[in-house]
Amino acid sequence: MKEYILKIDCKDEQGLIYRIADVVFKYQLNIIKNDEFVDAQFQKFFFRAKLSGTMDKEAFKGTLKAMLPNNANIYLSKVAKKNIVLMGTKESHCIGDILLKHYSNELEANILAIISNYDDLGSLAQKFDIPYYHVSHEDLKREEHEEEILKVLSKYEIDFLVLAKYMRILSPDFVKHYKNKMINIHHSFLPAFIGANPYKQAYSRGVKIIGATAHFVNDDLDEGPIISQDVIHIDHTLGWKEMQKAGRNVEKVVLSNALDLALEDRIFVNQNKTIIF
Amino acid sequence: MKEYILKIDCKDEQGLIYRIADVVFKYQLNIIKNDEFVDAQFQKFFFRAKLSGTMDKEAFKGTLKAMLPNNANIYLSKVAKKNIVLMGTKESHCIGDILLKHYSNELEANILAIISNYDDLGSLAQKFDIPYYHVSHEDLKREEHEEEILKVLSKYEIDFLVLAKYMRILSPDFVKHYKNKMINIHHSFLPAFIGANPYKQAYSRGVKIIGATAHFVNDDLDEGPIISQDVIHIDHTLGWKEMQKAGRNVEKVVLSNALDLALEDRIFVNQNKTIIF
Amino acid sequence: MKEYILKIDCKDEQGLIYRIADVVFKYQLNIIKNDEFVDAQFQKFFFRAKLSGTMDKEAFKGTLKAMLPNNANIYLSKVAKKNIVLMGTKESHCIGDILLKHYSNELEANILAIISNYDDLGSLAQKFDIPYYHVSHEDLKREEHEEEILKVLSKYEIDFLVLAKYMRILSPDFVKHYKNKMINIHHSFLPAFIGANPYKQAYSRGVKIIGATAHFVNDDLDEGPIISQDVIHIDHTLGWKEMQKAGRNVEKVVLSNALDLALEDRIFVNQNKTIIF
Amino acid sequence: MKEYILKIDCKDEQGLIYRIADVVFKYQLNIIKNDEFVDAQFQKFFFRAKLSGTMDKEAFKGTLKAMLPNNANIYLSKVAKKNIVLMGTKESHCIGDILLKHYSNELEANILAIISNYDDLGSLAQKFDIPYYHVSHEDLKREEHEEEILKVLSKYEIDFLVLAKYMRILSPDFVKHYKNKMINIHHSFLPAFIGANPYKQAYSRGVKIIGATAHFVNDDLDEGPIISQDVIHIDHTLGWKEMQKAGRNVEKVVLSNALDLALEDRIFVNQNKTIIF
Repeated sequence: MKEYILKIDCKDEQGLIYRIADVVFKYQLNIIKNDEFVDAQFQKFFFRAKLSGTMDKEAFKGTLKAMLPNNANIYLSKVAKKNIVLMGTKESHCIGDILLKHYSNELEANILAIISNYDDLGSLAQKFDIPYYHVSHEDLKREEHEEEILKVLSKYEIDFLVLAKYMRILSPDFVKHYKNKMINIHHSFLPAFIGANPYKQAYSRGVKIIGATAHFVNDDLDEGPIISQDVIHIDHTLGWKEMQKAGRNVEKVVLSNALDLALEDRIFVNQNKTIIF
Repeated sequence: MKEYILKIDCKDEQGLIYRIADVVFKYQLNIIKNDEFVDAQFQKFFFRAKLSGTMDKEAFKGTLKAMLPNNANIYLSKVAKKNIVLMGTKESHCIGDILLKHYSNELEANILAIISNYDDLGSLAQKFDIPYYHVSHEDLKREEHEEEILKVLSKYEIDFLVLAKYMRILSPDFVKHYKNKMINIHHSFLPAFIGANPYKQAYSRGVKIIGATAHFVNDDLDEGPIISQDVIHIDHTLGWKEMQKAGRNVEKVVLSNALDLALEDRIFVNQNKTIIF
Repeated sequence: MKEYILKIDCKDEQGLIYRIADVVFKYQLNIIKNDEFVDAQFQKFFFRAKLSGTMDKEAFKGTLKAMLPNNANIYLSKVAKKNIVLMGTKESHCIGDILLKHYSNELEANILAIISNYDDLGSLAQKFDIPYYHVSHEDLKREEHEEEILKVLSKYEIDFLVLAKYMRILSPDFVKHYKNKMINIHHSFLPAFIGANPYKQAYSRGVKIIGATAHFVNDDLDEGPIISQDVIHIDHTLGWKEMQKAGRNVEKVVLSNALDLALEDRIFVNQNKTIIF
Repeated sequence: MKEYILKIDCKDEQGLIYRIADVVFKYQLNIIKNDEFVDAQFQKFFFRAKLSGTMDKEAFKGTLKAMLPNNANIYLSKVAKKNIVLMGTKESHCIGDILLKHYSNELEANILAIISNYDDLGSLAQKFDIPYYHVSHEDLKREEHEEEILKVLSKYEIDFLVLAKYMRILSPDFVKHYKNKMINIHHSFLPAFIGANPYKQAYSRGVKIIGATAHFVNDDLDEGPIISQDVIHIDHTLGWKEMQKAGRNVEKVVLSNALDLALEDRIFVNQNKTIIF
């Protein structure tokens, strides 16, 4: 008996759950858990189920496809660890947190590599025996630097690329390689404080909460579909450096939660939003 | 086209969702939203759906029953306002909050009456034109007092009885009339600070959070299935009266949220717990 | 024995607390509580104390002034209820919440009047016996409408003007009459979703938190010093109307908390920020 | 110019701030920040200030002592890193989090050693080059085991002993060596779920929030003065293992925050409570 995650999104129609349940029943699979959501505005249907049993995956998908509206997306994956690569710059709190979870076997992922434009994180990667690639951006044009990174990434088959405080903007050309596979942590509660130095912006604005946002990356800076957000309350005694220190705890937890959701195949991207089951 | 809430709980078996979806499909009903949960420990299946269409309710339920395991509970209700009665003592914040929501048409309920063992809340009830019953407990034994309250309640057909800071313990004899229909707000994050004066207990213990818990009432004081909880952070500068004042905002919001969940038929009681869709 | 609030802000210098404590001591007053903060960036000193005793207020202020740097602001007020006026438009949740607190004697304020550009809130004001002024903006230019409102306000000596979901922009000419005395509730976690329809903006952006911000009003829309903010977590199942409904609980609590802080003289405005003791 | 933390607690009397400020002024020290609190119930005065300047510490303390009520506690410490020892059992998330902060120089402490009754955490300690002592409790009576631990601890001069998920109860004899110096993290929002397996207790009770509590350890299990608490919202889909996983993020952040407060000398213990400036 194995476990599978089935994800379907398609045009909404009457009877979809019946048709899916019918196929699942005919293949003698068991539904451990299922969730569905209909986006009424766009008439789109989203469905996720955890199944148990044994099956011919391709046959099952084929039967399902025949029962669903045209252009239905069907994703079927055995429950198993995903492969991820982490990218960072200098700060270690997010990468360290993921490394620790990996080390204590709490992460449903294999960390294949860490890539950074600096060498600051190298010793940390080494402690945890993860291959580290220092791909400096110095003296390189953006496209050249990204080319170097893509060269490293090409060695690995990855499910998710995690920008764990990678502090450089990635070009649309880079991003298109990892559509809905690249997760970034931004150190503000988006859409507030887009761009550089959100803690300085927050200090300057005098907000009473600071936060963090994990999101998929798309072409527009900090505009991608939001996966997870959280905030903490602050007061006037915090300068921007104290905010930054306090914020790190939020950043790492928000990123970690978003990564868990991704690793468990619980996220759909619906236009510029996410649906999370 | 009408909207219905269908709730089912029964022994878990393979194919339940298929069977339910099959019946729904055959009655040409549309599933607007559905949720299910299996309690693996007790092998129990819980299902809730919002349906639209037109149907013969009894026929539909009969067909469903035939498809489900023995002793399945099937609840089917047209989406409509529920009837509630509020009970209070002296404090007005929870009752006032519900009255305001009722007044602004934000509550999916008709408030049929307010009952209190004091007359303090009478003028508030009068402002909002809700019948008010002052049922004093003075010089009455507990069972006599409860008898008086039941006499008032017997005039009304109610879906939920809301204890909005009703500060007297109700006997098991009273409670059994309103199994899973009586919602209480307790002014602590249960199971901490059960019983009298939770803010004094909280002050005395020196906690850094205070909170509130809305729960169904059962025989044991403050032991019923929890529906909703929330907390706020406090510090050493608050005495128990300041905690009480700050806590009132939490109490009223937690009770209001729990009541909304009940009014939308989103709660299952599973032994001493709730499942909320 | 009476209680007073003393608030001082001035250029930072060495020995300020000593000098203040010296004067307090010489006037045989008791410090029940004191707080201070230095804004290191602007070299400004902020001090607040709750004093008890009896004093000649003007003499005490004069002595203090002589001990403090030039241009020190000294505010001294007997602890007493403030006078406030509420302004609203159509929504009743914030005004209703304040009315309820006033009714149950939990508000350290007298509500002198309610002003609205619609008549929707009139019956609520009447329930609580508060004078209601319906000042319609129809067929009036902005300045003419504001002139009408100012005419009403001129009848009252007010400490704070509370914009409890007043949905029209006020001109700088209006605002300058109530510098640091006008508190607004904005239904988003500013600076996100400035301007109209923040819940629609939030829905469209796909955020996972929504919130509210209470702030003093200055010339720039939603740019005034923030007093209080809070958020709640949401998910993809909420449309903008569900967000609006859920958000109302946050709005009213945030506004109520901010108003309490103002009524207790606990807020300093420091440029475009607040310091809250 | 150096920075110092001054902490005073004593019987409350009129003029204490004046007297302290007077001494500070005479020693030509600058008050960067000060906080005070009076516990009205017990007539106790608490004061903390961050001072800058140069001073003869003993002379300054002597002058202060002469100005304060008998039995005043005066604590004066140069701002500097503290020395800490961590104790754990098998779980790595709290210890790992502290090690990471230490590694990235965000912790105002030197970690002198890690002690555990198992060897599971040894490889983690080794990664970060911290001396690791495996002091097994097997075949030892409680007092013998504690004797072994005390032998290790005797090698170090420590400011705080951090129980970072150390899962054995410590005897009063052990505890008395580290009065108000031993910080524990308990994996529930105390006083709920005292004792063993709080997540199982939480699951069984059906709570809608879970949390963590950092506290000083005293003789009674989980009864010591609370420093910091936080919670997260959960729902019926989480079994106790999922609660445990989700809770770890809360535990480590709550412990880390409490430790920061201790390291910055911001905590007073007032009977069984804390005052935190």
